[in-house]
This record gives sequence, structure tokens and C-alpha cells, in this order.
Amino acid sequence: MAIKILGFPGSTYTLAVLMTLEELGVPYEFVEVDWTEIKSPEFLAKHPFGQVPVLIDDDFTLYESRPIAVYLAKKYQGTKKSTILYPTDDERKSALLDQYMSVEYSDYDPAIKIVARELIYTKFNGKTPVQENIEEGREAISKVLDVYDKLLEGKDYLAGDFSLVDIFHIPYSNYLIKLNNRDLWEDPKRPNVVRWWKSISNRESWIKLISEHEAKLLVK
Amino acid sequence: MAIKILGFPGSTYTLAVLMTLEELGVPYEFVEVDWTEIKSPEFLAKHPFGQVPVLIDDDFTLYESRPIAVYLAKKYQGTKKSTILYPTDDERKSALLDQYMSVEYSDYDPAIKIVARELIYTKFNGKTPVQENIEEGREAISKVLDVYDKLLEGKDYLAGDFSLVDIFHIPYSNYLIKLNNRDLWEDPKRPNVVRWWKSISNRESWIKLISEHEAKLLVK
Ligand SMILES: N[C@@H](CCC(=O)N[C@@H](CS)C(=O)NCC(=O)O)C(=O)O
Ligand SMILES: N[C@@H](CCC(=O)N[C@@H](CS)C(=O)NCC(=O)O)C(=O)O
Repeated sequence: MAIKILGFPGSTYTLAVLMTLEELGVPYEFVEVDWTEIKSPEFLAKHPFGQVPVLIDDDFTLYESRPIAVYLAKKYQGTKKSTILYPTDDERKSALLDQYMSVEYSDYDPAIKIVARELIYTKFNGKTPVQENIEEGREAISKVLDVYDKLLEGKDYLAGDFSLVDIFHIPYSNYLIKLNNRDLWEDPKRPNVVRWWKSISNRESWIKLISEHEAKLLVK
Repeated sequence: MAIKILGFPGSTYTLAVLMTLEELGVPYEFVEVDWTEIKSPEFLAKHPFGQVPVLIDDDFTLYESRPIAVYLAKKYQGTKKSTILYPTDDERKSALLDQYMSVEYSDYDPAIKIVARELIYTKFNGKTPVQENIEEGREAISKVLDVYDKLLEGKDYLAGDFSLVDIFHIPYSNYLIKLNNRDLWEDPKRPNVVRWWKSISNRESWIKLISEHEAKLLVK
């Protein structure tokens, strides 16, 4: 039975999981869920917090996007393609990947969300974005990217080789860049970030995914 | 060479890592860091975001509390004591532990922090806590604990057996309970949460840890 991913095509966390599957070359079925469904008893039985994405792998159900991606990588990497997204042969390498995944969730994602809240969600709710909040968020992103420029010194990707952690940075950054924040990711004072972003955002798997779901992305 | 943990004794994330080591029975050296040190070039070379905790295991340096705990469990569990904190013998069990760790970080921790911000940090900064924010935070915690009551149905601990995920819930909840929020964790309408909290907060390792660091906890 094929792996099923339940999600919204525009959801950044759903897109990160789908990109993981594309990179692994594992066939999957994408089950589009509607906003109105996720708090139904039926959906809550799969995800008690009523969110997407959810993975169904045969009789196994798993939620939370980063753990889903780690599970998929550990189980399927190397079986369809040679790509390894989560190294398991070396305890230090796994730990460092976990560390960078935690940095993404602890530092990058919250900074991004300040701007996303104004430029994406505020608008959806018919409200006017507050310029001051946007500036505060851009400042926060800039500070995080300054650190990333050091983390990426002498490395192509955050954990050395391309991996899950790079994937998790793509969907939200892509939205923000399309919303007039390109300058943050292309600032010549952060040459390593510029090089990294160019490389990861041009992955074939990502290009394929967004062209497939273009009509339903939150930002076009 | 003994494992070193650099941290503040009152930091909840530091305490979670120390409790992990206590549960594993692994000897360690706790290196107390001062607030004024963490943005120094020397410290930033260990943790580029200038935070605690940091692990030093021989020539290996790792930051981010949850990945540190996972690394320690994978490497040392079963060597000093029989306690297993992160199951590695079954891919589904590991994935479910990751899932619950992500729930703690995605749902529990943010709700807790709304109240902690008012009751701990606002006071530190000499400001007056805003009652409305406290109420909003308590409401958020209550909603999360309602879901936890379902997650804990028929189980002693979140992932079945006692594990890392239970540990990460203890330090912050302990602070909030001491700050007049005990009712949230002892509400009879959430019997599974009441039972779980009683069990995990009475672990010997935790009692030992807080009596050892009592003078420096953020809340006494
Ligand atoms: N921690 C979760 C967050 C998932 C999440 O926030 N999903 C959003 C869509 S991107 C959602 O379902 N929101 C609906 C809601 O929270 O009610 C994960 O990483 O999977
Ligand atoms: N995501 C980090 C968060 C660590 C963190 O926030 N540590 C606090 C103490 S509990 C700290 O060092 N704060 C100082 C700062 O951020 O400047 C982790 O889980 O280790």
C-alpha cells in the first residue's frame, strides 16, 4: 500500500514532507484535506491537535512534520535513490542533524513567522499588515541569517551534505521571498547564505512540487 | 573525560538535560555559565546563538537541548542503568517518541511560555505581569492538557514507557505550578494528566536535581 500524506498543498510543513518523499524517490499518495475537516472527530482520531500533515504508512499513523520526515528518511533512504537525508551510520552526524533541525524550529521558523503572520495570515483574515511588525520580523530573520552565514562557512549545506534540514527551510522562505523579501536571502554581506539558498531552492524536487501545486500555494 | 554540560542551573532546558543524565546514571560535570558570558566570542564559538545548554563530550560539542538529550540517551542508555529513554530497536517506537517530543515543543512549550513570560520574565525585568496575558496563557495550557488527557488514556507515560519526552515536560511545568497554577495539573476533569504529572514530578532524579540546585532556581 502506498504511503499517504494528508495535508493542504499550500501548507509549508506539508510541502516539506512531500519534498522529502520526492527526494527519496518513494511513491506516495497525496490526500488533500480541507480546512473545514481538520477539527472533525474523524480527523482528530488521526491527529489529536487537528493539524496537517499526517502520514499513513500501512497501519501506522504519524503526525508532526519533522518526525514524519525523519521516519521516512530512516526507513526509505537508499532504497529507491542513493540520496541519504538523515545519516544513521555515525552518532555524531545524526546528532548534528538533529541539532540543525532544532535550530530551524527554534530560531529560523519563529523569525519567519513574524513576517508570515503579517504578509500571509493577516491578509487572509481581511486585516491590514502592520509595517512595524514586518520590520521587526525582517530584523529577526536578518539576525538569524547572519548566524547561518557562519554556520555555512566552508559547507555546501547546513549539515555538510544535503539533508532534511535544508528541505525544512525551503517552503516558508520561498513564500517570504515572493512577498518582496528577496533582499534578505540575496544580501552580498552573507555570501554563504546566498550560495546555499540558490542551491537548495533550485532542487529539481522542489521545482517539480511547486509547479504541481501552483494553483493552491498560499503565495504565487 | 567526563561529559560536560554548560548551563544555568535555573534554565528549564538545562535542567531537562541534567535530568536525562541523572536518569541514565552517567557521571557528568556541570559547568555553571553566567548570563553575561553567553554572548562572548569564546562562548559563541561553542553555541553560535549564545544560549545554554551546551554539551561537551570529549572532542564533540553539541547544542540544542532536545538533540543533546537524544544523543545522550542513544549513546549511554543501558550502560550504567537499565533505563531506556529513547527506544532504538523499533522504527515506529522511535518515530512516536519523536512525534511526542515535537508536540512538547510545538504545543506544550509555547502555551507554557505565555504564562512564564508574565510570571517569571516580566518580573525579572521589573515590569508588572498583565493579568489578561496570564489568563490567555492558562487557557492555552488548559486546551493542550485536554488533548494530553486523551493521549495519556491507558498509558502511564506519553510514549508508553517513561522516556525523554516526559522529562522535557517537567522543568517548566514545575515553575508554573509553584506560581499558583497547580489547579491546571490537578484538575479532576483530566484524571490521566493528574496521574501522569504526579508520577513524573516525583521521579527520584528530579527531586535530587532540584534540591541540589535549589538556591539558583528561577522559582523556589
Ligand atoms: N507542529 C506541527 C505544526 C503543523 C501546523 O501548524 N499545520 C498547520 C498548517 S501549515 C495547520 O494544520 N493549521 C491548522 C491548525 O493549527 O488549526 C507540524 O510540524 O506538523
Ligand atoms: N532551542 C534552545 C533554547 C535554549 C534557550 O532558550 N536557553 C535560554 C535559557 S533557558 C538561554 O540561553 N537564553 C539566553 C538567550 O537566548 O540569549 C534549546 O532547546 O536548547
